[in-house]
Amino acid sequence: MEWGLLETPILLTSTMSVGKVSDATVKWMTRRFPGIGDEYDVIIPIVGECDDSWLNDAVGRHVRSEHVYRAIEQASGGPVAEGSVGAGTGLITCDFKAGIGTSSRRVVIFRGNGETGPSYNLGVLVQTNFGIMRSLRIAGVPVGEILAPDYANDGKRVRNAGSIICVVATDAPLLPNQITRLCKRAALGIGRVGSFAAHASGEIIIGFSTANQVPRSTSGMTHQIEVLLDDACDGLYEAVVECTEEAIVNALCMAEDMRGQADHFAPALPLDDLAEILNRHHAAQQR
Amino acid sequence: MEWGLLETPILLTSTMSVGKVSDATVKWMTRRFPGIGDEYDVIIPIVGECDDSWLNDAVGRHVRSEHVYRAIEQASGGPVAEGSVGAGTGLITCDFKAGIGTSSRRVVIFRGNGETGPSYNLGVLVQTNFGIMRSLRIAGVPVGEILAPDYANDGKRVRNAGSIICVVATDAPLLPNQITRLCKRAALGIGRVGSFAAHASGEIIIGFSTANQVPRSTSGMTHQIEVLLDDACDGLYEAVVECTEEAIVNALCMAEDMRGQADHFAPALPLDDLAEILNRHHAAQQR
Amino acid sequence: MEWGLLETPILLTSTMSVGKVSDATVKWMTRRFPGIGDEYDVIIPIVGECDDSWLNDAVGRHVRSEHVYRAIEQASGGPVAEGSVGAGTGLITCDFKAGIGTSSRRVVIFRGNGETGPSYNLGVLVQTNFGIMRSLRIAGVPVGEILAPDYANDGKRVRNAGSIICVVATDAPLLPNQITRLCKRAALGIGRVGSFAAHASGEIIIGFSTANQVPRSTSGMTHQIEVLLDDACDGLYEAVVECTEEAIVNALCMAEDMRGQADHFAPALPLDDLAEILNRHHAAQQR
Amino acid sequence: MEWGLLETPILLTSTMSVGKVSDATVKWMTRRFPGIGDEYDVIIPIVGECDDSWLNDAVGRHVRSEHVYRAIEQASGGPVAEGSVGAGTGLITCDFKAGIGTSSRRVVIFRGNGETGPSYNLGVLVQTNFGIMRSLRIAGVPVGEILAPDYANDGKRVRNAGSIICVVATDAPLLPNQITRLCKRAALGIGRVGSFAAHASGEIIIGFSTANQVPRSTSGMTHQIEVLLDDACDGLYEAVVECTEEAIVNALCMAEDMRGQADHFAPALPLDDLAEILNRHHAAQQR
Repeated sequence: MEWGLLETPILLTSTMSVGKVSDATVKWMTRRFPGIGDEYDVIIPIVGECDDSWLNDAVGRHVRSEHVYRAIEQASGGPVAEGSVGAGTGLITCDFKAGIGTSSRRVVIFRGNGETGPSYNLGVLVQTNFGIMRSLRIAGVPVGEILAPDYANDGKRVRNAGSIICVVATDAPLLPNQITRLCKRAALGIGRVGSFAAHASGEIIIGFSTANQVPRSTSGMTHQIEVLLDDACDGLYEAVVECTEEAIVNALCMAEDMRGQADHFAPALPLDDLAEILNRHHAAQQR
Repeated sequence: MEWGLLETPILLTSTMSVGKVSDATVKWMTRRFPGIGDEYDVIIPIVGECDDSWLNDAVGRHVRSEHVYRAIEQASGGPVAEGSVGAGTGLITCDFKAGIGTSSRRVVIFRGNGETGPSYNLGVLVQTNFGIMRSLRIAGVPVGEILAPDYANDGKRVRNAGSIICVVATDAPLLPNQITRLCKRAALGIGRVGSFAAHASGEIIIGFSTANQVPRSTSGMTHQIEVLLDDACDGLYEAVVECTEEAIVNALCMAEDMRGQADHFAPALPLDDLAEILNRHHAAQQR
Repeated sequence: MEWGLLETPILLTSTMSVGKVSDATVKWMTRRFPGIGDEYDVIIPIVGECDDSWLNDAVGRHVRSEHVYRAIEQASGGPVAEGSVGAGTGLITCDFKAGIGTSSRRVVIFRGNGETGPSYNLGVLVQTNFGIMRSLRIAGVPVGEILAPDYANDGKRVRNAGSIICVVATDAPLLPNQITRLCKRAALGIGRVGSFAAHASGEIIIGFSTANQVPRSTSGMTHQIEVLLDDACDGLYEAVVECTEEAIVNALCMAEDMRGQADHFAPALPLDDLAEILNRHHAAQQR
Repeated sequence: MEWGLLETPILLTSTMSVGKVSDATVKWMTRRFPGIGDEYDVIIPIVGECDDSWLNDAVGRHVRSEHVYRAIEQASGGPVAEGSVGAGTGLITCDFKAGIGTSSRRVVIFRGNGETGPSYNLGVLVQTNFGIMRSLRIAGVPVGEILAPDYANDGKRVRNAGSIICVVATDAPLLPNQITRLCKRAALGIGRVGSFAAHASGEIIIGFSTANQVPRSTSGMTHQIEVLLDDACDGLYEAVVECTEEAIVNALCMAEDMRGQADHFAPALPLDDLAEILNRHHAAQQR
């Protein structure tokens, strides 16, 4: 929001491993780009976090530098691993096992007058760890309320220190203040899944566009950039809300039962039950 | 957010009547409290607005001072008029006639450890004017999508210059930064109704607590105030999301068909159809 | 900060006349541009204010629509009236009569490597009404402390409800987030004059660039804009600090003694004494 | 600004050592308070940074965990080490060697009506690394401009990647939003020393009050706190501006010449010349 530039990979991890992950990223970046801290400015990595201390021995800070290097080096296009992977391993959402989820849209831009124009990609990746069962809504259906009687909390997990980190990416040519506006809309998608953003929950949304890149050094003083008109942004706004909702649901649907430290247990969302509930509602909608 | 104090009534009106309403409020306040601008500081009224120019001759700025005086003087406790009243007269939400809506909760405070404590009131009043039909969700059900085929837009209303103003009130003893956090949660309720916060839509949320009042003048320099612990706020957060969602739905349900300037027309939400749709879904949920 | 666009003139007035000025501006704009509220969106004027109620009968709200129309219609290039003019008529800064002041720079852009590039204009206009005498610094010299013994406050003016509004204008091609950063720097110039931003003082800074204009309607969906690189902005940042400091001093130097309502009196800054003080310091600097 | 609570020590370091320092702080805290991550929430340390890569081998990230443990364990009351110490070792301000500086005030609270009340302590500690020589003002005197001819830059140091971190501490009973207001005023003190907040410079201010402490766990749901009235805060605002200005000057005055990595050199502010310059101006002021 201050510089409007993204200079490092975005990394996600366990809350108390942020320092280690940040440090390893600096080490990796300065090896790969030797001019940093000399020819170029120093860097400050972007590291998101959720509290996974119910399932994970978070105090043990088990993430090591080599895990970070591998994450950066193996980052690639194509399908994204979802569920209990990476920083999502120990996460819980609405009392079900969750983790990493993603969703994307190809957005055709329409002006107010109905003209069609260019189309752009928008994707959301979430590290999701918020909420309580009775609030869970999937596709608007109060799934959590319906399932809750079968999942009586044993009363052990009283702390509800959740959070969700959303990363919003697009190739639409948006300015930094337009990216900020896009990110704010992601919160509406979090709301649709049933979040009321509990006190101890941190909802953090970061976004970037790959369309306009600013060179680290240049002989020019101004540059020409292409910008999407604000009037043409509504399709992206709609997409970011949908993708955020869907990415959270995907994280829930891709995770499996997990037993973690201290014999703590998080059940997966029961997909068969979910399918039946959603089918009933879909049928009701069609009649 | 800067002073943390509210010094005037909150007024809601049509966008281009803000100046007139602000001016009339100053006039009313300075007559009623002659010390203003002399013994006490000058005042700056809080006036919210939505763009009602599809149905209303907004350019005509027909709100007059006497309307403002009457609104202030007739403000009272008890049931709140909803639908096409006051600043809600010319408003449209998700292509249906809307206006003013309200909802409230009595919130029992639970600590994380399950203890019950005091209970507080929280209410939300909305001036609602946003969105498009196919996004409308009521109680999670995609009502807009189901009804849309019966309400083909004739293509005249291309501008979608919406907005929603939410006023959040509580008697819970919250600090200014806690009120700010409470207000942010109202946005999650807006999301549940289907908003994607279109470019031209302004979502503005203002909140206040009646619990701690600061005297205009005092011989003391510090004062003692009671504050609700953050850990105990989750019930209020949940309530503000629910109330915002419900207040918007109430505005839709209480409004009737309206034909306005230039023969523009906004249909009411068809309550019989709505009841049938919701009943079907409720039945699906019970099975 | 939300839309990044400026659609109306910026008007400055007395605090409790904001409503009237806003209303008159809407009236003027809708007459001049008949498509507003129909073909185009409604507008919300930008009106800044200071509390002039020590010298002015502020409660009387004596600004009328015709004053607003005249202000808009007579706005022109060339020298700017300073001191006790317009919204500056009843203002006081550091216990001396003040009002409107302005200052500008022609800024040559240098890159970090010393290359020179294009040059741009930057101007600041202030409506200044803050502070107490003993804090006043002019060109770094503690002028207020030196002059204070000659201006013992008679104890009547206990309220210190100040404020300063700064309007920053440039033709440099800056994005909205760059304008925000430019505006924040203006605060540093306010600090140099001796402000500590008292509780009741509101420091509001608004800025705009004339370089990139966005059409109200267009058949395109993206547009090409020229942007100044952040690395090249330091000259503008330095200029905005200097101009803000200088504009405040100019407002003080151009105002004359004023006796206002209730026989309240504000003395002008004694220019002869000021010149002597500054000359002594300038001589000390040269040795 | 979100929670309004401070849960860890505040640590200051070199930009690219933030990760290591954060990680070591987590390790120290979780050893000292074994309930973290189990009985209590996880923690996120607060670590400030400046770019010292001109004098320091910043890429080498030479801060180790034991340095962090020692810093936390040896923190004590009494005189504060200033100049080239700790995170200040490699810092430069206005092209002179700088580092850590501090200043404090005992503030007697006055109401607007002149009554005196309680008194409170306010202190500022800076990690200062910003600016260019010709802008340097000390006590308002353009010291940088006067000294610049004797310190011609050899042209090597073209990057000007500065920053200043200010830590504001008080025992006045201020709410979180009042602390935010206090912190904003610190910027005015930075301005008085000559900063124009260059693009690559990050001005970050963090503050806290020790007056009201919130227990990690409690059986209550509300608590009573004492709050200083806003009208009574002006003395603290004035103090924070003065302390920030003075803390920066102290950092400059306590640092000595330093030759760092790559034979880079930063000269100390010449104190004899400074004294002579200030004496001349002081004499001019007295006449």
